[in-house]
Amino acid sequence: MAMDGYKGFLVLLVSALLVGFLSVIFTLVWVLHYRGGLGWDGTNLEFNWHPVLMVTGFVFIQGIAIIVYRLPWTWKCSKLLMKSIHAGLNAVAAILAIISLVAVFENRNYRNITHLYSLHGWVGLTVVILYVLQLLLGFLVFLLPWAPLSLRAFLMPIHVYSGLLLFGTAIVTILMGVTEKLFFVLTNPAYSTFPPEGVFVNTLGLIILVFGGLIFWIVTRPQWKRPKELTSTLLQPNGATTEGVEGSVATSYGHNMDKSDSELNNEIAARKRNLALDEAVQRSTM
Amino acid sequence: MAMDGYKGFLVLLVSALLVGFLSVIFTLVWVLHYRGGLGWDGTNLEFNWHPVLMVTGFVFIQGIAIIVYRLPWTWKCSKLLMKSIHAGLNAVAAILAIISLVAVFENRNYRNITHLYSLHGWVGLTVVILYVLQLLLGFLVFLLPWAPLSLRAFLMPIHVYSGLLLFGTAIVTILMGVTEKLFFVLTNPAYSTFPPEGVFVNTLGLIILVFGGLIFWIVTRPQWKRPKELTSTLLQPNGATTEGVEGSVATSYGHNMDKSDSELNNEIAARKRNLALDEAVQRSTM
Repeated sequence: MAMDGYKGFLVLLVSALLVGFLSVIFTLVWVLHYRGGLGWDGTNLEFNWHPVLMVTGFVFIQGIAIIVYRLPWTWKCSKLLMKSIHAGLNAVAAILAIISLVAVFENRNYRNITHLYSLHGWVGLTVVILYVLQLLLGFLVFLLPWAPLSLRAFLMPIHVYSGLLLFGTAIVTILMGVTEKLFFVLTNPAYSTFPPEGVFVNTLGLIILVFGGLIFWIVTRPQWKRPKELTSTLLQPNGATTEGVEGSVATSYGHNMDKSDSELNNEIAARKRNLALDEAVQRSTM
Repeated sequence: MAMDGYKGFLVLLVSALLVGFLSVIFTLVWVLHYRGGLGWDGTNLEFNWHPVLMVTGFVFIQGIAIIVYRLPWTWKCSKLLMKSIHAGLNAVAAILAIISLVAVFENRNYRNITHLYSLHGWVGLTVVILYVLQLLLGFLVFLLPWAPLSLRAFLMPIHVYSGLLLFGTAIVTILMGVTEKLFFVLTNPAYSTFPPEGVFVNTLGLIILVFGGLIFWIVTRPQWKRPKELTSTLLQPNGATTEGVEGSVATSYGHNMDKSDSELNNEIAARKRNLALDEAVQRSTM
Protein backbone atom coordinates (compact mmCIF):
# COMPACT_ATOMS: atom_id res chain seq x y z
CA MET A 1 0.00 0.00 0.00
CA ALA A 2 1.23 3.47 -0.86
CA MET A 3 2.33 5.75 1.98
CA ASP A 4 2.92 9.50 1.71
CA GLY A 5 6.56 10.30 2.39
CA TYR A 6 7.53 6.59 2.44
CA LYS A 7 11.25 7.32 2.11
CA GLY A 8 11.19 9.74 5.02
CA PHE A 9 9.32 7.15 7.07
CA LEU A 10 11.91 4.50 6.25
CA VAL A 11 14.81 6.78 7.18
CA LEU A 12 13.19 7.64 10.53
CA LEU A 13 12.17 4.05 11.25
CA VAL A 14 15.69 2.73 10.58
CA SER A 15 17.13 5.59 12.68
CA ALA A 16 14.76 4.76 15.55
CA LEU A 17 15.67 1.07 15.39
CA LEU A 18 19.39 1.85 15.32
CA VAL A 19 19.20 4.43 18.11
CA GLY A 20 16.98 2.14 20.22
CA PHE A 21 19.36 -0.78 19.67
CA LEU A 22 22.29 1.50 20.53
CA SER A 23 20.63 2.48 23.83
CA VAL A 24 20.40 -1.22 24.80
CA ILE A 25 24.04 -1.83 23.77
CA PHE A 26 25.23 1.22 25.73
CA THR A 27 23.35 0.02 28.82
CA LEU A 28 24.90 -3.44 28.51
CA VAL A 29 28.40 -1.94 28.10
CA TRP A 30 27.74 0.26 31.15
CA VAL A 31 26.87 -2.63 33.47
CA LEU A 32 29.28 -5.21 31.96
CA HIS A 33 32.33 -2.99 31.51
CA TYR A 34 31.94 -0.35 34.24
CA ARG A 35 29.64 -1.94 36.88
CA GLY A 36 31.02 -5.46 37.28
CA GLY A 37 28.54 -7.43 35.15
CA LEU A 38 25.23 -9.19 35.74
CA GLY A 39 24.12 -11.73 38.35
CA TRP A 40 21.11 -12.80 40.42
CA ASP A 41 22.55 -12.99 43.91
CA GLY A 42 21.17 -9.91 45.67
CA THR A 43 24.38 -7.93 45.15
CA ASN A 44 24.86 -4.97 42.84
CA LEU A 45 25.24 -7.48 40.00
CA GLU A 46 21.53 -8.21 40.46
CA PHE A 47 20.77 -4.47 40.60
CA ASN A 48 22.48 -4.16 37.20
CA TRP A 49 19.55 -6.00 35.59
CA HIS A 50 17.44 -2.95 36.53
CA PRO A 51 18.81 -0.52 33.91
CA VAL A 52 19.29 -3.28 31.30
CA LEU A 53 15.69 -4.51 31.51
CA MET A 54 14.19 -1.02 31.80
CA VAL A 55 16.02 0.34 28.75
CA THR A 56 15.27 -2.85 26.77
CA GLY A 57 11.61 -3.13 27.79
CA PHE A 58 10.41 0.31 28.80
CA VAL A 59 12.32 2.25 26.15
CA PHE A 60 13.11 0.08 23.12
CA ILE A 61 10.26 -2.46 23.09
CA GLN A 62 7.62 0.02 24.30
CA GLY A 63 8.76 2.48 21.61
CA ILE A 64 8.40 -0.15 18.87
CA ALA A 65 4.99 -1.20 20.26
CA ILE A 66 3.83 2.42 19.91
CA ILE A 67 4.66 2.71 16.20
CA VAL A 68 3.84 -0.83 15.08
CA TYR A 69 0.50 0.16 13.48
CA ARG A 70 2.36 2.61 11.26
CA LEU A 71 4.56 0.09 9.43
CA PRO A 72 3.05 0.20 5.91
CA TRP A 73 3.88 -3.47 5.26
CA THR A 74 1.39 -4.38 8.00
CA TRP A 75 -1.52 -2.41 6.55
CA LYS A 76 -2.74 -5.47 4.67
CA CYS A 77 -2.71 -7.50 7.91
CA SER A 78 -5.91 -7.68 9.95
CA LYS A 79 -6.42 -5.16 12.72
CA LEU A 80 -6.77 -8.07 15.14
CA LEU A 81 -3.29 -9.35 14.27
CA MET A 82 -1.80 -5.87 14.67
CA LYS A 83 -3.56 -5.35 18.00
CA SER A 84 -2.18 -8.70 19.18
CA ILE A 85 1.35 -7.66 18.19
CA HIS A 86 0.89 -4.25 19.89
CA ALA A 87 -0.43 -5.90 23.06
CA GLY A 88 2.22 -8.64 22.92
CA LEU A 89 5.11 -6.18 22.71
CA ASN A 90 3.65 -4.12 25.56
CA ALA A 91 3.20 -7.30 27.61
CA VAL A 92 6.86 -8.21 27.06
CA ALA A 93 7.84 -4.68 28.10
CA ALA A 94 5.68 -4.95 31.26
CA ILE A 95 7.18 -8.33 32.20
CA LEU A 96 10.73 -7.03 31.76
CA ALA A 97 9.84 -3.96 33.86
CA ILE A 98 8.45 -6.13 36.66
CA ILE A 99 11.52 -8.42 36.68
CA SER A 100 13.61 -5.24 36.70
CA LEU A 101 11.74 -4.03 39.82
CA VAL A 102 12.26 -7.40 41.53
CA ALA A 103 16.02 -6.99 40.93
CA VAL A 104 16.02 -3.58 42.67
CA PHE A 105 13.88 -4.70 45.62
CA GLU A 106 16.01 -7.83 46.21
CA ASN A 107 19.20 -5.79 45.98
CA ARG A 108 17.88 -3.19 48.47
CA ASN A 109 16.77 -5.91 50.87
CA TYR A 110 20.19 -7.56 50.58
CA ARG A 111 21.97 -4.25 51.29
CA ASN A 112 19.37 -3.15 53.86
CA ILE A 113 18.54 0.10 52.05
CA THR A 114 15.17 1.84 52.37
CA HIS A 115 12.81 1.34 49.44
CA LEU A 116 11.15 4.03 47.35
CA TYR A 117 12.34 7.22 49.01
CA SER A 118 13.50 9.08 45.90
CA LEU A 119 11.48 10.85 43.22
CA HIS A 120 12.79 8.23 40.76
CA GLY A 121 11.26 5.52 42.95
CA TRP A 122 7.92 7.30 43.38
CA VAL A 123 7.46 8.09 39.71
CA GLY A 124 8.90 4.77 38.53
CA LEU A 125 6.60 2.57 40.62
CA THR A 126 3.59 4.69 39.59
CA VAL A 127 4.51 4.34 35.90
CA VAL A 128 4.89 0.54 36.13
CA ILE A 129 1.55 0.17 37.94
CA LEU A 130 -0.27 2.45 35.47
CA TYR A 131 1.42 0.66 32.55
CA VAL A 132 0.12 -2.72 33.74
CA LEU A 133 -3.37 -1.22 34.24
CA GLN A 134 -3.22 0.30 30.74
CA LEU A 135 -2.23 -3.11 29.35
CA LEU A 136 -5.07 -4.92 31.17
CA LEU A 137 -7.66 -2.31 30.20
CA GLY A 138 -6.45 -2.33 26.60
CA PHE A 139 -6.68 -6.13 26.50
CA LEU A 140 -10.20 -6.18 27.98
CA VAL A 141 -11.61 -3.34 25.90
CA PHE A 142 -9.80 -3.45 22.56
CA LEU A 143 -8.58 -7.02 22.09
CA LEU A 144 -11.35 -9.13 23.58
CA PRO A 145 -14.46 -8.93 21.39
CA TRP A 146 -17.04 -8.11 24.06
CA ALA A 147 -16.67 -4.38 24.77
CA PRO A 148 -19.39 -2.24 23.17
CA LEU A 149 -18.10 -0.13 20.29
CA SER A 150 -19.24 3.04 22.04
CA LEU A 151 -16.94 2.21 24.97
CA ARG A 152 -14.06 1.51 22.59
CA ALA A 153 -14.64 4.80 20.78
CA PHE A 154 -14.76 6.67 24.09
CA LEU A 155 -11.62 5.05 25.51
CA MET A 156 -9.42 5.08 22.38
CA PRO A 157 -8.22 8.72 22.64
CA ILE A 158 -7.51 8.20 26.35
CA HIS A 159 -5.64 4.94 25.58
CA VAL A 160 -3.48 6.67 22.95
CA TYR A 161 -2.80 9.68 25.20
CA SER A 162 -1.99 7.67 28.31
CA GLY A 163 0.21 5.29 26.31
CA LEU A 164 2.32 8.16 25.01
CA LEU A 165 2.37 9.89 28.40
CA LEU A 166 3.55 6.68 30.08
CA PHE A 167 6.29 6.26 27.43
CA GLY A 168 7.44 9.85 28.03
CA THR A 169 7.30 9.43 31.79
CA ALA A 170 9.23 6.15 31.56
CA ILE A 171 12.02 8.12 29.86
CA VAL A 172 11.84 10.83 32.56
CA THR A 173 12.14 8.12 35.21
CA ILE A 174 15.05 6.37 33.53
CA LEU A 175 17.03 9.60 33.23
CA MET A 176 16.38 10.38 36.91
CA GLY A 177 17.61 6.86 37.73
CA VAL A 178 20.75 7.34 35.64
CA THR A 179 21.39 10.63 37.49
CA GLU A 180 20.95 8.94 40.91
CA LYS A 181 23.24 6.04 40.02
CA LEU A 182 26.03 8.21 38.61
CA PHE A 183 26.09 10.48 41.67
CA PHE A 184 26.18 7.39 43.92
CA VAL A 185 28.94 5.45 42.21
CA LEU A 186 31.16 8.14 40.66
CA THR A 187 33.00 9.30 43.75
CA ASN A 188 36.61 8.41 42.97
CA PRO A 189 37.23 9.85 40.45
CA ALA A 190 34.22 12.11 41.00
CA TYR A 191 31.49 12.61 38.37
CA SER A 192 32.55 16.28 38.23
CA THR A 193 36.00 15.33 36.85
CA PHE A 194 34.49 13.89 33.64
CA PRO A 195 35.50 10.23 34.19
CA PRO A 196 34.94 7.94 31.15
CA GLU A 197 31.93 6.25 32.81
CA GLY A 198 30.24 9.63 33.42
CA VAL A 199 30.73 10.78 29.83
CA PHE A 200 29.65 7.36 28.50
CA VAL A 201 26.45 7.19 30.55
CA ASN A 202 25.60 10.85 29.85
CA THR A 203 25.80 9.87 26.18
CA LEU A 204 23.46 6.94 26.89
CA GLY A 205 20.99 9.46 28.37
CA LEU A 206 21.15 11.58 25.21
CA ILE A 207 20.63 8.47 23.04
CA ILE A 208 17.50 7.55 25.01
CA LEU A 209 16.13 11.10 24.54
CA VAL A 210 16.81 10.96 20.78
CA PHE A 211 15.00 7.60 20.59
CA GLY A 212 12.00 9.12 22.40
CA GLY A 213 12.03 12.10 20.02
CA LEU A 214 12.08 9.81 16.95
CA ILE A 215 9.18 7.69 18.24
CA PHE A 216 7.12 10.84 19.03
CA TRP A 217 7.78 12.21 15.53
CA ILE A 218 6.84 8.95 13.79
CA VAL A 219 3.66 8.46 15.84
CA THR A 220 2.34 12.01 15.40
CA ARG A 221 2.65 12.36 11.58
CA PRO A 222 -0.91 12.25 10.21
CA GLN A 223 0.26 10.97 6.80
CA TRP A 224 1.78 7.84 8.36
CA LYS A 225 -1.38 6.68 10.11
CA ARG A 226 -2.66 3.21 9.29
CA PRO A 227 -5.42 3.93 6.74
CA LYS A 228 -9.06 3.39 7.62
CA GLU A 229 -10.32 -0.05 6.82
CA LEU A 230 -12.06 -0.93 3.59
CA THR A 231 -15.23 -1.75 5.50
CA SER A 232 -17.36 1.26 4.92
CA THR A 233 -16.86 1.28 1.17
CA LEU A 234 -17.61 -2.42 0.94
CA LEU A 235 -20.54 -2.20 3.31
CA GLN A 236 -22.40 0.49 1.43
CA PRO A 237 -24.46 -1.42 -1.16
CA ASN A 238 -24.62 1.61 -3.45
CA GLY A 239 -20.89 2.21 -3.22
CA ALA A 240 -21.28 5.51 -1.36
CA THR A 241 -18.60 6.12 1.24
CA THR A 242 -19.45 6.94 4.81
CA GLU A 243 -18.34 10.23 6.28
CA GLY A 244 -14.64 10.56 6.65
CA VAL A 245 -13.59 7.60 4.55
CA GLU A 246 -11.33 8.77 1.77
CA GLY A 247 -11.73 7.46 -1.75
CA SER A 248 -8.02 7.01 -2.12
CA VAL A 249 -7.94 4.52 0.73
CA ALA A 250 -10.77 2.49 -0.75
CA THR A 251 -9.07 2.57 -4.15
CA SER A 252 -5.82 1.34 -2.77
CA TYR A 253 -7.62 -1.68 -1.39
CA GLY A 254 -8.44 -2.68 -4.98
CA HIS A 255 -6.20 -5.72 -4.76
CA ASN A 256 -8.77 -7.29 -2.48
CA MET A 257 -10.91 -7.81 -5.52
CA ASP A 258 -8.57 -10.61 -6.53
CA LYS A 259 -9.42 -12.56 -3.41
CA SER A 260 -12.00 -15.32 -3.27
CA ASP A 261 -15.51 -14.44 -2.12
CA SER A 262 -15.19 -16.35 1.13
CA GLU A 263 -11.96 -14.60 2.03
CA LEU A 264 -13.56 -11.26 1.26
CA ASN A 265 -16.67 -12.05 3.29
CA ASN A 266 -14.55 -13.00 6.25
CA GLU A 267 -12.65 -9.77 5.91
CA ILE A 268 -15.84 -7.75 5.67
CA ALA A 269 -17.21 -9.38 8.81
CA ALA A 270 -14.00 -8.80 10.71
CA ARG A 271 -13.72 -5.23 9.55
CA LYS A 272 -17.36 -4.48 10.28
CA ARG A 273 -16.73 -5.28 13.93
CA ASN A 274 -13.88 -2.82 14.02
CA LEU A 275 -15.41 0.00 12.03
CA ALA A 276 -16.56 2.22 14.86
CA LEU A 277 -13.29 1.74 16.65
CA ASP A 278 -11.23 2.50 13.58
CA GLU A 279 -13.12 5.70 13.05
CA ALA A 280 -12.53 6.64 16.67
CA VAL A 281 -8.84 6.01 16.21
CA GLN A 282 -8.80 8.10 13.06
CA ARG A 283 -10.51 10.95 14.90
CA SER A 284 -7.85 10.80 17.56
CA THR A 285 -5.00 13.17 16.81
CA MET A 286 -2.17 10.75 17.34
CA MET B 1 -17.67 30.98 19.64
CA ALA B 2 -18.95 27.52 20.49
CA MET B 3 -16.45 24.85 21.50
CA ASP B 4 -17.12 21.11 21.71
CA GLY B 5 -16.74 19.89 25.28
CA TYR B 6 -16.40 23.45 26.62
CA LYS B 7 -17.03 22.41 30.25
CA GLY B 8 -14.36 19.72 30.09
CA PHE B 9 -11.96 22.25 28.60
CA LEU B 10 -12.69 24.72 31.41
CA VAL B 11 -12.14 22.08 34.10
CA LEU B 12 -8.81 21.05 32.58
CA LEU B 13 -7.68 24.62 31.98
CA VAL B 14 -8.44 25.65 35.56
CA SER B 15 -6.72 22.47 36.80
CA ALA B 16 -3.65 23.22 34.68
CA LEU B 17 -3.49 26.81 35.97
CA LEU B 18 -3.87 25.68 39.59
CA VAL B 19 -1.35 22.86 39.28
CA GLY B 20 1.12 25.11 37.42
CA PHE B 21 0.71 27.83 40.05
CA LEU B 22 1.16 25.21 42.77
CA SER B 23 4.45 24.05 41.21
CA VAL B 24 5.79 27.63 41.42
CA ILE B 25 4.59 27.99 45.03
CA PHE B 26 6.16 24.64 46.00
CA THR B 27 9.47 25.70 44.43
CA LEU B 28 9.39 29.01 46.32
CA VAL B 29 8.62 27.23 49.60
CA TRP B 30 11.46 24.80 48.89
CA VAL B 31 14.12 27.51 48.46
CA LEU B 32 12.71 29.98 51.03
CA HIS B 33 11.86 27.53 53.79
CA TYR B 34 14.34 24.67 53.30
CA ARG B 35 17.26 26.19 51.32
CA GLY B 36 17.89 29.51 53.08
CA GLY B 37 16.14 31.92 50.69
CA LEU B 38 17.13 33.92 47.62
CA GLY B 39 20.03 36.29 46.93
CA TRP B 40 22.38 37.41 44.15
CA ASP B 41 25.78 37.12 45.81
CA GLY B 42 27.30 34.01 44.18
CA THR B 43 26.39 31.80 47.17
CA ASN B 44 23.78 29.07 47.20
CA LEU B 45 21.17 31.80 47.69
CA GLU B 46 21.94 32.82 44.10
CA PHE B 47 21.76 29.19 42.97
CA ASN B 48 18.25 29.07 44.45
CA TRP B 49 17.01 31.33 41.64
CA HIS B 50 17.78 28.44 39.27
CA PRO B 51 14.85 26.15 40.25
CA VAL B 52 12.51 29.12 40.87
CA LEU B 53 13.07 30.67 37.44
CA MET B 54 13.11 27.32 35.60
CA VAL B 55 9.83 26.12 37.12
CA THR B 56 8.22 29.54 36.59
CA GLY B 57 9.49 30.08 33.04
CA PHE B 58 10.24 26.68 31.55
CA VAL B 59 7.30 24.84 33.10
CA PHE B 60 4.45 27.22 33.95
CA ILE B 61 4.84 30.03 31.37
CA GLN B 62 5.97 27.70 28.57
CA GLY B 63 2.98 25.44 29.29
CA ILE B 64 0.54 28.36 29.06
CA ALA B 65 2.23 29.59 25.85
CA ILE B 66 1.61 26.15 24.31
CA ILE B 67 -2.16 26.16 24.91
CA VAL B 68 -2.88 29.87 24.40
CA TYR B 69 -4.36 29.36 20.90
CA ARG B 70 -6.92 26.99 22.38
CA LEU B 71 -8.63 29.48 24.71
CA PRO B 72 -12.05 29.87 23.03
CA TRP B 73 -12.39 33.51 24.20
CA THR B 74 -9.42 34.36 21.96
CA TRP B 75 -10.88 32.84 18.81
CA LYS B 76 -12.37 36.18 17.79
CA CYS B 77 -8.96 37.86 18.20
CA SER B 78 -6.71 38.12 15.16
CA LYS B 79 -4.18 35.39 14.54
CA LEU B 80 -1.44 38.05 14.60
CA LEU B 81 -2.40 39.08 18.15
CA MET B 82 -2.44 35.46 19.30
CA LYS B 83 0.91 34.76 17.67
CA SER B 84 2.34 37.82 19.44
CA ILE B 85 1.04 36.57 22.80
CA HIS B 86 2.42 33.05 22.09
CA ALA B 87 5.81 34.49 21.10
CA GLY B 88 5.79 36.95 24.00
CA LEU B 89 5.15 34.26 26.62
CA ASN B 90 7.87 32.06 25.11
CA ALA B 91 10.25 35.04 25.08
CA VAL B 92 9.57 35.65 28.79
CA ALA B 93 10.20 31.95 29.47
CA ALA B 94 13.49 32.09 27.51
CA ILE B 95 14.67 35.20 29.40
CA LEU B 96 13.88 33.60 32.78
CA ALA B 97 15.72 30.43 31.69
CA ILE B 98 18.79 32.42 30.68
CA ILE B 99 18.84 34.40 33.98
CA SER B 100 18.44 31.04 35.72
CA LEU B 101 21.52 29.70 33.90
CA VAL B 102 23.51 32.82 34.87
CA ALA B 103 22.65 32.11 38.52
CA VAL B 104 24.05 28.56 38.27
CA PHE B 105 27.21 29.57 36.42
CA GLU B 106 27.97 32.39 38.88
CA ASN B 107 27.34 30.10 41.85
CA ARG B 108 29.63 27.40 40.40
CA ASN B 109 32.38 29.95 39.70
CA TYR B 110 32.03 31.28 43.26
CA ARG B 111 32.31 27.77 44.72
CA ASN B 112 34.92 26.67 42.15
CA ILE B 113 32.84 23.73 40.92
CA THR B 114 33.20 22.26 37.40
CA HIS B 115 30.48 23.28 34.94
CA LEU B 116 28.25 21.00 32.90
CA TYR B 117 29.52 17.55 33.84
CA SER B 118 26.18 15.92 34.64
CA LEU B 119 23.45 14.64 32.30
CA HIS B 120 21.19 17.37 33.75
CA GLY B 121 23.70 19.98 32.62
CA TRP B 122 24.20 18.49 29.14
CA VAL B 123 20.49 18.13 28.40
CA GLY B 124 19.56 21.40 30.11
CA LEU B 125 22.00 23.59 28.16
CA THR B 126 20.96 21.88 24.91
CA VAL B 127 17.27 22.52 25.66
CA VAL B 128 17.84 26.23 26.43
CA ILE B 129 19.90 26.74 23.24
CA LEU B 130 17.33 24.91 21.08
CA TYR B 131 14.49 26.82 22.78
CA VAL B 132 16.09 30.17 21.89
CA LEU B 133 16.66 28.98 18.30
CA GLN B 134 13.02 27.82 18.11
CA LEU B 135 11.91 31.24 19.36
CA LEU B 136 14.07 33.12 16.83
CA LEU B 137 13.02 30.87 13.94
CA GLY B 138 9.36 31.16 14.95
CA PHE B 139 9.65 34.95 15.10
CA LEU B 140 11.35 35.19 11.68
CA VAL B 141 9.09 32.72 9.88
CA PHE B 142 5.67 33.01 11.51
CA LEU B 143 5.47 36.47 13.06
CA LEU B 144 7.34 38.69 10.59
CA PRO B 145 5.34 39.01 7.36
CA TRP B 146 8.07 38.16 4.85
CA ALA B 147 8.40 34.36 4.90
CA PRO B 148 6.77 32.67 1.90
CA LEU B 149 3.62 30.75 2.79
CA SER B 150 5.15 27.54 1.43
CA LEU B 151 7.99 27.84 3.95
CA ARG B 152 5.50 28.50 6.77
CA ALA B 153 3.42 25.50 5.76
CA PHE B 154 6.54 23.31 5.62
CA LEU B 155 7.90 24.46 8.98
CA MET B 156 4.66 24.55 11.01
CA PRO B 157 4.46 20.80 11.85
CA ILE B 158 8.17 20.88 12.79
CA HIS B 159 7.61 24.00 14.94
CA VAL B 160 4.69 22.35 16.78
CA TYR B 161 6.57 19.06 17.27
CA SER B 162 9.81 20.66 18.45
CA GLY B 163 7.91 23.01 20.77
CA LEU B 164 6.22 20.09 22.51
CA LEU B 165 9.42 18.02 22.55
CA LEU B 166 11.32 20.91 24.14
CA PHE B 167 8.57 21.33 26.76
CA GLY B 168 8.73 17.61 27.59
CA THR B 169 12.53 17.64 27.68
CA ALA B 170 12.48 20.73 29.92
CA ILE B 171 10.43 18.69 32.40
CA VAL B 172 12.86 15.74 32.09
CA THR B 173 15.74 18.11 32.80
CA ILE B 174 14.05 19.75 35.79
CA LEU B 175 13.31 16.38 37.41
CA MET B 176 16.94 15.29 36.88
CA GLY B 177 18.01 18.57 38.51
CA VAL B 178 15.68 18.00 41.46
CA THR B 179 17.16 14.49 41.86
CA GLU B 180 20.74 15.84 41.79
CA LYS B 181 20.01 18.58 44.30
CA LEU B 182 18.21 16.31 46.78
CA PHE B 183 21.03 13.74 46.76
CA PHE B 184 23.56 16.55 47.29
CA VAL B 185 21.86 18.38 50.14
CA LEU B 186 19.93 15.68 51.99
CA THR B 187 22.77 14.02 53.86
CA ASN B 188 21.89 14.63 57.50
CA PRO B 189 19.17 13.42 57.84
CA ALA B 190 19.69 11.39 54.64
CA TYR B 191 17.21 11.46 51.73
CA SER B 192 16.62 7.73 52.40
CA THR B 193 15.13 8.48 55.85
CA PHE B 194 12.18 10.38 54.32
CA PRO B 195 13.02 13.86 55.74
CA PRO B 196 10.26 16.48 55.25
CA GLU B 197 12.27 18.28 52.53
CA GLY B 198 12.64 15.04 50.55
CA VAL B 199 8.94 14.23 50.71
CA PHE B 200 8.02 17.86 49.92
CA VAL B 201 10.27 18.12 46.86
CA ASN B 202 9.28 14.64 45.59
CA THR B 203 5.72 16.00 45.70
CA LEU B 204 6.86 19.04 43.71
CA GLY B 205 8.24 16.63 41.09
CA LEU B 206 4.88 14.85 40.85
CA ILE B 207 3.07 18.20 40.55
CA ILE B 208 5.32 19.21 37.63
CA LEU B 209 4.59 15.88 35.90
CA VAL B 210 0.83 16.34 36.37
CA PHE B 211 1.08 19.86 34.91
CA GLY B 212 2.91 18.46 31.87
CA GLY B 213 0.25 15.75 31.48
CA LEU B 214 -2.57 18.34 31.59
CA ILE B 215 -0.89 20.58 28.99
CA PHE B 216 -0.31 17.59 26.68
CA TRP B 217 -3.96 16.52 27.00
CA ILE B 218 -5.30 20.03 26.31
CA VAL B 219 -3.02 20.62 23.30
CA THR B 220 -3.73 17.28 21.61
CA ARG B 221 -7.58 17.29 21.69
CA PRO B 222 -8.71 17.89 18.10
CA GLN B 223 -12.04 19.37 19.23
CA TRP B 224 -10.29 22.19 21.12
CA LYS B 225 -8.25 23.46 18.18
CA ARG B 226 -8.66 27.10 17.20
CA PRO B 227 -11.07 26.94 14.25
CA LYS B 228 -9.95 27.73 10.74
CA GLU B 229 -10.26 31.37 9.73
CA LEU B 230 -13.17 32.80 7.81
CA THR B 231 -10.94 33.59 4.83
CA SER B 232 -11.71 30.89 2.36
CA THR B 233 -15.48 31.26 2.57
CA LEU B 234 -15.25 35.01 2.10
CA LEU B 235 -12.74 34.73 -0.69
CA GLN B 236 -14.81 32.43 -2.84
CA PRO B 237 -17.05 34.76 -4.87
CA ASN B 238 -19.63 32.04 -5.45
CA GLY B 239 -19.70 31.09 -1.77
CA ALA B 240 -18.12 27.68 -2.37
CA THR B 241 -15.83 26.61 0.42
CA THR B 242 -12.31 25.48 -0.28
CA GLU B 243 -11.22 21.99 0.61
CA GLY B 244 -11.09 21.31 4.30
CA VAL B 245 -13.00 24.37 5.50
CA GLU B 246 -16.05 23.32 7.42
CA GLY B 247 -19.37 25.08 6.96
CA SER B 248 -19.94 25.29 10.68
CA VAL B 249 -16.87 27.43 11.12
CA ALA B 250 -17.95 29.82 8.38
CA THR B 251 -21.44 30.03 9.88
CA SER B 252 -20.17 30.88 13.29
CA TYR B 253 -18.36 33.85 11.81
CA GLY B 254 -21.73 35.31 10.77
CA HIS B 255 -21.31 38.23 13.17
CA ASN B 256 -18.76 39.66 10.79
CA MET B 257 -21.58 40.61 8.51
CA ASP B 258 -22.44 43.41 10.92
CA LYS B 259 -19.08 45.03 10.41
CA SER B 260 -18.43 47.90 8.00
CA ASP B 261 -17.11 47.08 4.55
CA SER B 262 -13.71 48.60 5.22
CA GLU B 263 -13.27 46.61 8.43
CA LEU B 264 -14.27 43.47 6.58
CA ASN B 265 -11.93 44.17 3.67
CA ASN B 266 -9.06 44.67 6.06
CA GLU B 267 -9.90 41.42 7.77
CA ILE B 268 -10.11 39.59 4.45
CA ALA B 269 -6.73 40.94 3.40
CA ALA B 270 -5.14 40.03 6.70
CA ARG B 271 -6.67 36.59 6.71
CA LYS B 272 -5.76 35.97 3.07
CA ARG B 273 -2.12 36.35 4.00
CA ASN B 274 -2.51 33.72 6.67
CA LEU B 275 -4.71 31.25 4.82
CA ALA B 276 -2.09 28.81 3.65
CA LEU B 277 -0.46 28.86 7.04
CA ASP B 278 -3.72 28.31 8.89
CA GLU B 279 -4.49 25.32 6.72
CA ALA B 280 -1.02 23.96 7.36
CA VAL B 281 -1.61 24.35 11.08
CA GLN B 282 -4.96 22.62 10.82
CA ARG B 283 -3.37 19.76 8.92
CA SER B 284 -0.83 19.37 11.68
CA THR B 285 -1.96 16.83 14.24
CA MET B 286 -1.41 18.92 17.33
